[in-house]
Amino acid sequence: MVSAVSSLERGAFREAIAAIVGQAGVVADPAAMAPYLTDWRGRYRGAAELVVRPASTEEVAQVVKCCARERVAIVPQGGNTGLCGGSVPLAEDVSSGRQIVLSLSRMNRIRELDAENNTITVEAGCVLASIQAAARGANRLFPLSLGAEGSCQIGGNLSTNAGGEAVLRYGNCRDLVLGLEVVLPDGRVWDGLRALRKDNTGYDLKQLFIGAEGTLGVITAAVLKLFPLPTATATALLGIESPSQAVELLSELRATMGDRVVSFELMSRLALALVLKHIPGTSDPLSQPYPWYLLVELSDSGASEALNARLLQALEEALERGRVRDAVLAQSEAQREALWRLRDSMAEAQKKEGVSLKHDVSVPVSRVPQFIEEASRALEEAFPGVRIVAFGHIGDGNIHYNVSMADPQMNARFVQEPEPVNRIVYDSVARLGGSISAEHGLGQLKRKVIQRYKSALELELMRAIKRTLDPHNLMNPGKVV
Amino acid sequence: MVSAVSSLERGAFREAIAAIVGQAGVVADPAAMAPYLTDWRGRYRGAAELVVRPASTEEVAQVVKCCARERVAIVPQGGNTGLCGGSVPLAEDVSSGRQIVLSLSRMNRIRELDAENNTITVEAGCVLASIQAAARGANRLFPLSLGAEGSCQIGGNLSTNAGGEAVLRYGNCRDLVLGLEVVLPDGRVWDGLRALRKDNTGYDLKQLFIGAEGTLGVITAAVLKLFPLPTATATALLGIESPSQAVELLSELRATMGDRVVSFELMSRLALALVLKHIPGTSDPLSQPYPWYLLVELSDSGASEALNARLLQALEEALERGRVRDAVLAQSEAQREALWRLRDSMAEAQKKEGVSLKHDVSVPVSRVPQFIEEASRALEEAFPGVRIVAFGHIGDGNIHYNVSMADPQMNARFVQEPEPVNRIVYDSVARLGGSISAEHGLGQLKRKVIQRYKSALELELMRAIKRTLDPHNLMNPGKVV
Repeated sequence: MVSAVSSLERGAFREAIAAIVGQAGVVADPAAMAPYLTDWRGRYRGAAELVVRPASTEEVAQVVKCCARERVAIVPQGGNTGLCGGSVPLAEDVSSGRQIVLSLSRMNRIRELDAENNTITVEAGCVLASIQAAARGANRLFPLSLGAEGSCQIGGNLSTNAGGEAVLRYGNCRDLVLGLEVVLPDGRVWDGLRALRKDNTGYDLKQLFIGAEGTLGVITAAVLKLFPLPTATATALLGIESPSQAVELLSELRATMGDRVVSFELMSRLALALVLKHIPGTSDPLSQPYPWYLLVELSDSGASEALNARLLQALEEALERGRVRDAVLAQSEAQREALWRLRDSMAEAQKKEGVSLKHDVSVPVSRVPQFIEEASRALEEAFPGVRIVAFGHIGDGNIHYNVSMADPQMNARFVQEPEPVNRIVYDSVARLGGSISAEHGLGQLKRKVIQRYKSALELELMRAIKRTLDPHNLMNPGKVV
Repeated sequence: MVSAVSSLERGAFREAIAAIVGQAGVVADPAAMAPYLTDWRGRYRGAAELVVRPASTEEVAQVVKCCARERVAIVPQGGNTGLCGGSVPLAEDVSSGRQIVLSLSRMNRIRELDAENNTITVEAGCVLASIQAAARGANRLFPLSLGAEGSCQIGGNLSTNAGGEAVLRYGNCRDLVLGLEVVLPDGRVWDGLRALRKDNTGYDLKQLFIGAEGTLGVITAAVLKLFPLPTATATALLGIESPSQAVELLSELRATMGDRVVSFELMSRLALALVLKHIPGTSDPLSQPYPWYLLVELSDSGASEALNARLLQALEEALERGRVRDAVLAQSEAQREALWRLRDSMAEAQKKEGVSLKHDVSVPVSRVPQFIEEASRALEEAFPGVRIVAFGHIGDGNIHYNVSMADPQMNARFVQEPEPVNRIVYDSVARLGGSISAEHGLGQLKRKVIQRYKSALELELMRAIKRTLDPHNLMNPGKVV
């Protein structure tokens, strides 16, 4: 597929694309293209002939058809907030040929909201927060919630099977989908936009495209599930002794509260300390430091007072039993936001502190304590003085596990060689039956390393699926498989 | 693949299989084989060389390998409680060659229960009720619940993506799976038994096998999600005016009760009347007949008294607003069971009344009233005097819609020609964006008719997946695709 392309060919291709999407839909100026070619953390810089911004499914289909004919590869892109380089093209020197970025951002209509069916039909370019808002406007909840919700787009959320902060209660993005519309690699449109809770008429094709990071087709629209909008929320920050205590407490709290438990977030003292150090306006809500913290949120119908009272009682019992060392319950929305700010500023605080080697891993919930202990011990042995910032969605067994050196100069060298660190962390994850990418996907970043941790048979099956749907390897090449 | 097979060949094959599973694992006597060759409603009678009953994944793998080598087709079978003939082999005259029934019933171990991770790892032959019981024993809920739970096996539930009576709250079988172990059509074992809430490392292969009715491989084990065990239940039977009222009430009840609403079952007066007529010991809990009924069940943590009080208040408000005409709340477990018996005896009562043409359909919840009205009007026009028994999981948009003639002689002729009736029902479903098989699958029964209602492109994609995984068409041939 490597070919020398004359500017005439490129020019003719550009004209063909412009004839489909109009001049407004084509970005060819290098400066205007730049934001589409770099991921938001600035680690990947790719090359592309054009950025194409179609405004409808039909335009996407025509563009894909044109690319298929010309054997031009396509990198679908939503809000470009991914963490593994999945939504930016490969750099010129590793790319195997011609490629475009296909931005879905102009396809941002909410096509339908059916409150009685608890569904919303949205186009791929809808920003996640706008879908949440539309649902709220109809007295419904769209529960997918994550740090980038103000800029990420649902097409990207679907393509990476996004997780976030309400998975414990509502599941991953995959669990929130009833139907999809997909432009296939040959440009045909698969209309799977069904709004059905039950449909057992053959293979559930939509599952193939969810989490495929754009390697099997372009998701252009989706039917998403809505839920009753909770009217009560109760939020608390807990100081605890260890991750083991967190797991025990989760079990107890779910036994008494059932599925009111929506979020259950673990933070190490170091993780919190970095937030307190770097994020203005934050303060420690507890009177003294504790080794670990939990941010717990419940939601329910009915009144917040009743829910708060129940949570208070549960926490008092947990304090008595020694499960919790201290706790503070949010008494107002402002206090709730202040607690969540501690959690949501984790990434920013760590960025300000300096570069680190990040790992988005999961293990069975019951094994999180063992993972944290084993990985930390092995790292400290291999890299004396290593600094570990661990936090994440312990309710889902999903830990963000970031490793650095406190000394800036040592750290600069340390982060240049991620492999030995990754090896220790991922090997520990694998021994415990975990995943080396819990919610961020593979993208470019983990496409190679996954080959160590996935069976040859599973990789073979993935490649067979890829070949079946995308025989010319034109959909987001160099990602995932 | 049609071939005349000498008895020697058959004998050698049988010996090879017996060498793998032992004589205890081979059923070759026609009388002993008979139950495996007929579905429980007695509509399908198939032919097979052998019934093979392996006791381990390794034995399944060896059997499948042997069959692949000999080009012998395999019909995987669980509890054989399916309604579409998916788990029995094709009859000799339509079968294209040699085939065996592969019964998973000896693989019935619960391999692991991890309460802190809220997961249970089970083999395919576990009877659903035994999994529910094991979960309860650990103070957890496995929420899949359906009429056949005392005899259906989880491998079949997974292969048909079973629905049932708690889908509104907990989702279909697909939503309850974290990992699978599958023997592929070539006999290799794919170990996807992950117990992770989050894992985004490539295509989610398990989704292919769930709901595939054994046409892509043999599910041998699964990791299933468990939930907090509810301690409170509240159950009521409501007399209402119309399906529209049911949909409105569902919306209102979920707004005030949130996800405590677990079951929301609609029954027509005629459906109830047949139960009262044919099922001994049943009686109408309401003082007079109503056109439609709802069976509503809530569950929660905490005490049943509190939940009953909330449901009572909600029902009183609904009575005041005219949403409900009458209601009775179960005051004891015995009363609750009596109410559920009305719902659960629907199939049996109708069987006693006589044969009918059954349809397991779904539409968006908001369109159920329109479907019931449109289909009934069209049927009454085409078949004056037709009798329609409608009931089902209206909370999921899933209606069991059964059609017959009251007069037995007329009915005998009527059910001989299902196509014109099916056409009217399914066309109406299709116009409303629905599914012609909500929870029963396609099996043999709907394999042809689905071609009218699924796009050519979707059928093509399904066939491409089938060819990729099972190039010799050995896995449950003649089903689904």
